[in-house]
Amino acid sequence: MSSRAEFLKRLEDWGAALTNSILKLQEPVMEIPARTLSNTIWDEKARMLRLGPEKLQRRFLDMKEARRFMQTVLMLRLIVEAIREDVYPTIRDLYYNGKHTIVFKDPLGRTHRENTWDEQAESNAVIEDIEVAANVLREEMGVSADVKGKIVGPIVVRSQGYELDASKFGETALSLPVNVDALEIVKVEATYVLVVEKDAIFQRLVREKFWSQENAILVTAKGMPDRATRRFIRRLNEEYKLPVYVLTDGDPYGWYIYSVYKSGSIKLSYESERLATPDAKFLGLTATDIDAYKISDNYVIAANDRDIKRAQELLRYPWFQKPEWTREVNLFLRKKKKVEIEALSTHGLKFLHDYLRDKIRGRKFID
Amino acid sequence: MSSRAEFLKRLEDWGAALTNSILKLQEPVMEIPARTLSNTIWDEKARMLRLGPEKLQRRFLDMKEARRFMQTVLMLRLIVEAIREDVYPTIRDLYYNGKHTIVFKDPLGRTHRENTWDEQAESNAVIEDIEVAANVLREEMGVSADVKGKIVGPIVVRSQGYELDASKFGETALSLPVNVDALEIVKVEATYVLVVEKDAIFQRLVREKFWSQENAILVTAKGMPDRATRRFIRRLNEEYKLPVYVLTDGDPYGWYIYSVYKSGSIKLSYESERLATPDAKFLGLTATDIDAYKISDNYVIAANDRDIKRAQELLRYPWFQKPEWTREVNLFLRKKKKVEIEALSTHGLKFLHDYLRDKIRGRKFID
Repeated sequence: MSSRAEFLKRLEDWGAALTNSILKLQEPVMEIPARTLSNTIWDEKARMLRLGPEKLQRRFLDMKEARRFMQTVLMLRLIVEAIREDVYPTIRDLYYNGKHTIVFKDPLGRTHRENTWDEQAESNAVIEDIEVAANVLREEMGVSADVKGKIVGPIVVRSQGYELDASKFGETALSLPVNVDALEIVKVEATYVLVVEKDAIFQRLVREKFWSQENAILVTAKGMPDRATRRFIRRLNEEYKLPVYVLTDGDPYGWYIYSVYKSGSIKLSYESERLATPDAKFLGLTATDIDAYKISDNYVIAANDRDIKRAQELLRYPWFQKPEWTREVNLFLRKKKKVEIEALSTHGLKFLHDYLRDKIRGRKFID
Repeated sequence: MSSRAEFLKRLEDWGAALTNSILKLQEPVMEIPARTLSNTIWDEKARMLRLGPEKLQRRFLDMKEARRFMQTVLMLRLIVEAIREDVYPTIRDLYYNGKHTIVFKDPLGRTHRENTWDEQAESNAVIEDIEVAANVLREEMGVSADVKGKIVGPIVVRSQGYELDASKFGETALSLPVNVDALEIVKVEATYVLVVEKDAIFQRLVREKFWSQENAILVTAKGMPDRATRRFIRRLNEEYKLPVYVLTDGDPYGWYIYSVYKSGSIKLSYESERLATPDAKFLGLTATDIDAYKISDNYVIAANDRDIKRAQELLRYPWFQKPEWTREVNLFLRKKKKVEIEALSTHGLKFLHDYLRDKIRGRKFID
C-alpha cells in the first residue's frame, strides 16, 4: 500500500514535466488513455471490461484542446494542493474550488470571458483523466465521493489501527470507508459473500440472522454500486477466494447491476482490474424464475419502455453473450414481465431463505 | 422497552375486538386518528408538529369505507403473522404479500374483480393507520424500510449484547439499525452532535478528524432523514442533553430538511413526539451567509422554480414563523440565489472547519 505522499510525487512529477516543456519553449503535451466506448474492450480471457490501447494527445496549442488542457492542469493543481494541505476534498469540492471565470483579451483587444468549467460532469471527467494518465486512483489521492456500502458477517477488519469485528454488530452494520484499500482485512471466516441490491432486504437478512446461519458476509450498496463497495468485494474474492453471489431484482436493471460487479462498467473500464469480480455469480431472479418458483401473478410487474430498451442494450454487450443470459433476456423481451426480490414472499416471508439456499446449494446461479 | 410480543398482544386484541363485533352481529367499526394536513397541528409550546384530535370512523358497511377497512384488516393479519413467525418483512414485502385479486359475485350474479391494493402508497398508508390506531410503531412491529443513518464519535452503544465504540471506527462508520430504540446507549462523552446532510461532507469530516478535535458525534442520513436517524438524534438530545446542530446546503430544501429534524414532518406528525428534536439548531448556510462569508460568485447558483415554490411553502408553515427564518427566506426570494456547503471551499478546503467552529462558538446558528 503506497502512501498519499508517494502519489503526490507522481502528480508533482507530471506537473514538473509540463513546466519543463514550457521552460524549454516546447509545446506542453499530455498523453491520456482514451476513455471512450470505442476504446472499451471486452477482455474475454480476464472476463472483464478494459480500457483499450488508444491514447489521446492533449496539446496546449491546439484550439480544440486548450480548454481541456487548462482544466486538467487546474485539477492537477487542486489535487496536489489538497494532498499538501492534508485535506480530503469531495469531487464536488474540487468542482467548486476550481470554478472561476478567466477574463482575457485577444490580439484585437477584445475582452473574452471563459468559465474554467460549468458543470460538475466536466470536472469529474478531468479527475478521471488524471486517474488514467497518472495511474493514481481518486481514492489514493484522498478525493472522496459518496460511500454506500455496508457489511456484516464473519470478518475482522482494521482501520487506522482500530479492529472491527463485523460479526459483532448486532442489528447495526459496518459502513465501508472511501478508500477500502487502506482497510486491512485481519481475518475472514466466511464461506461466501452475499451481495444484496436492496438495503431493506439486507436489513431483513440481518435481523433474521441469515448470515450467521450461513456463515456468510452480507454486503449492500443500495442499487448501483459505488467504487468502494466493488473494490471491497473484489478483495474478498481475490485475496480470500470467497465465492461471491449477487442478489438483485429480476429486471434488466438488476441484471446490469450484477454485470457491473462482475465485469466492470463502461464508464470506469480503466478501473475493472481493481473493481471487477469476474467470479461473481448471479443469484437474483431471472425471467425463467417467474415460472420456476411459481411466482403468483400478483407479484409480476409489466415491463416499461425503459426496461425493454435496457434489455435490448444488454443483448448487444459482449459480456452478456452467454447462452444463459441471451435466453433469459430474450424470454424477458417476449414476456415483458419483471419481478422484484420481494416477490419471493409469494410463498411466505421465510421463502427468501429457502430460495437463497436452493440456488447456492443446487448451483442454480448464472455465471 | 417493550418486546415485540407485547405489541403482538395489542394487535391481536384489536383483531379480536373486530371479530367479537361480527360474532355479536354488530357492524365492525375502527376508530383511527386522521392523518391529514388539517389534523396536523403546530404545537408551539412543545415546538413540534403533532397529530390533532380528529378521528375517523372506518365502517365495514359503508361502501366508501369498505375497501380501506378490508385493507386495514388484511395488513393487520400480515403483520400479526410476521411477528408470530419471527420474520421481519419490509414495507415492500407487505405490499407484495397482501396484493391479490378478490373475485366476487354481486346479488345479480355478475362477477367482479377487485385488487386488494394497486400501489405501495396504499399499503404504506394502511401501515401508518395501524401505527396511529394501535399506538404501535412500525419499528416496534419489526417492519423494516431503508435505513440511511451512520455515525462516528465518542459514543458507545450496545446491540443484541454487542458493544460498539463509535470512536474506534477509523475511517469506517457505524450504520444505524432499523429500530434504534432497541439500541442501548452505554456511554456518551461527546460535547455536541453534528448532523451533516451530505454523505461526502461526512466522509471529509471523518478523514480530517474534525469529530475527534471537537469531541462531537457526527451523523449523516444522506438527504431527507429516515425515521431511525431522526429517532437516534432525538434520543441523544433528550437522554444526554447534547446540543444538536444541523449542517445543510443553503437552499429551501436544506432548510426544510433541518425543520424535519427539528419539528417533524407533516406526513409523520403522529411520530414527532418520538422523532423531533425541538432543540436542534440550524448550522447550515443562510441567504445572509452568501455575503457574510464572502462566498465568491462562482459558488452561487441561480434558484430554480422548485426552489422558489418550496421557499414560498416554507413561509406558510407556522413552524417557520420566526423573524430569523422569514428574513432569510424572503432574502432568498429576493436574490433567488442558493449555495451548497461545498461553496465554503471558496476560502480553501479547511475553511469548513473554521466555519463550523465560528458558528458554534459564536452562537451564529438559527434556533
